[in-house]
Amino acid sequence: MEKITSCSEMQQQARQWQSEQKRVGFVPTMGALHEGHLSLVKESLAHNETTVVSIFVNPAQFGPGEDFESYPRTLENDLAMLDQLGVDLLFLPSQDDFYQDGFSTYIEPPVVANRFEGTLRKDHFRGVTTVVLKLFMLTLPTNVYFGQKDFQQCAVLSTMIDDLALPVQFHRMPIVREEDGLAMSSRNRYLSESDREKARAISAALFSAQAAFENGEKEGCILRKIATDYLQKHGIHEIDYLTIVDPRSLTEVETIVTDVVLLVAARIGTTRLLDNILLTE
Amino acid sequence: MEKITSCSEMQQQARQWQSEQKRVGFVPTMGALHEGHLSLVKESLAHNETTVVSIFVNPAQFGPGEDFESYPRTLENDLAMLDQLGVDLLFLPSQDDFYQDGFSTYIEPPVVANRFEGTLRKDHFRGVTTVVLKLFMLTLPTNVYFGQKDFQQCAVLSTMIDDLALPVQFHRMPIVREEDGLAMSSRNRYLSESDREKARAISAALFSAQAAFENGEKEGCILRKIATDYLQKHGIHEIDYLTIVDPRSLTEVETIVTDVVLLVAARIGTTRLLDNILLTE
Repeated sequence: MEKITSCSEMQQQARQWQSEQKRVGFVPTMGALHEGHLSLVKESLAHNETTVVSIFVNPAQFGPGEDFESYPRTLENDLAMLDQLGVDLLFLPSQDDFYQDGFSTYIEPPVVANRFEGTLRKDHFRGVTTVVLKLFMLTLPTNVYFGQKDFQQCAVLSTMIDDLALPVQFHRMPIVREEDGLAMSSRNRYLSESDREKARAISAALFSAQAAFENGEKEGCILRKIATDYLQKHGIHEIDYLTIVDPRSLTEVETIVTDVVLLVAARIGTTRLLDNILLTE
Repeated sequence: MEKITSCSEMQQQARQWQSEQKRVGFVPTMGALHEGHLSLVKESLAHNETTVVSIFVNPAQFGPGEDFESYPRTLENDLAMLDQLGVDLLFLPSQDDFYQDGFSTYIEPPVVANRFEGTLRKDHFRGVTTVVLKLFMLTLPTNVYFGQKDFQQCAVLSTMIDDLALPVQFHRMPIVREEDGLAMSSRNRYLSESDREKARAISAALFSAQAAFENGEKEGCILRKIATDYLQKHGIHEIDYLTIVDPRSLTEVETIVTDVVLLVAARIGTTRLLDNILLTE
């Protein structure tokens, strides 16, 4: 696996591939890779001639007091996993090269960013849209892969791609879960043993609402109550939001007549966990 | 000359050129073409295999009370000029296609936008950066051409290109002037006959400061006074700014030790006119 750390070298390589008409798949990550990331990489490898993965813990998407400093960095392990899968190129930009002195152009994210994570994490999505657009410009991919676990992030990015006509094909890939249902996340390693035990209730709460939905319950308030009761019964009381929304606009839906998504964010100890499930006819 | 009005067709054509490895030059305009625009087009034709010109009066860069509605639209004349020069493709997007319902992703311009035109025309540069980035994504050019008359716009756009690593080569082309020195501008046609006469003093004021500079005057305050006095002596009193700045950061320079640019914006009647001149050793 080739490694590039310089932004200009990365773009030069990407232009080379472009001139060879190679179909390039791109998976941007912040490292601390798990099976969720690897599912994106495998999808890219299966459908492209060249696969680029980036690892860059992007300071612009962390707020003050968030976990930028302590975000897990497991580079050696990440390298081994990507190498074994057969990734062609790993892009590892430095912070100083990516955000050079005086950097001050940002992408103002679409309105779908102004809810949920966007209200709880000021400027988070502005950091995400900016880093992702610049990574696209440096890697010039045909296909880009993101995980559904960060559902709102997928909505923000796919809207940005449409609004600005970025010449990439966006792919949202299903959540990969631990055996007990917990959605894979780099932040799961923050959980203590007892919190980890408790965390299984998050996906279980979503599945309980899904079961009710599949048994014919179409009222949002009832489905939300089923999931909320489940969380509380299992000792999860710090729920940032638990909501049923339209998958594109992320506006709330009361009576379900078309596909929706049930989104949840909850705190267990000091760790925030996100999960979601599509409710489809 | 081919014409395309659909954004998706434009991008499809651009991808086609990309797969043929064609070097594409791009000149974005708002129409009402004059010799200044044509000099950009000629430069593009001379250095690229394919030249695309766009005409799009971009609502996002006009503020409330500005001249979006009355901005000169001279399409028939524009078409004839571009056709005669041998432009390959004219891109004429509609407002509804370019800014589809719900469009809400914008480019927050770099700090160099927060002065001069940026303070006088709120959100103007945000409209410019957004339209230009999207036009780049639709036309996928190798080289892009802008006129130095809008010096700050050039600084904003070239900084955006650097910050976001947009894969295009930026070219700032010299101001084209009328015989009496007035910088060509689509808005010159707003001038009454007497105002048009007066307007020649703007470039003449710059040339008088330049002459002093070339005779060894390196103090910004003196050069500014020479130009300001000239304007006032010739009946131009509404000077929005007249300033000597660093060409990249547009921060003010007092004693000149390296290349600078003298920028001016003044009102004659209801028309705002911009001009500038590089002072180089």
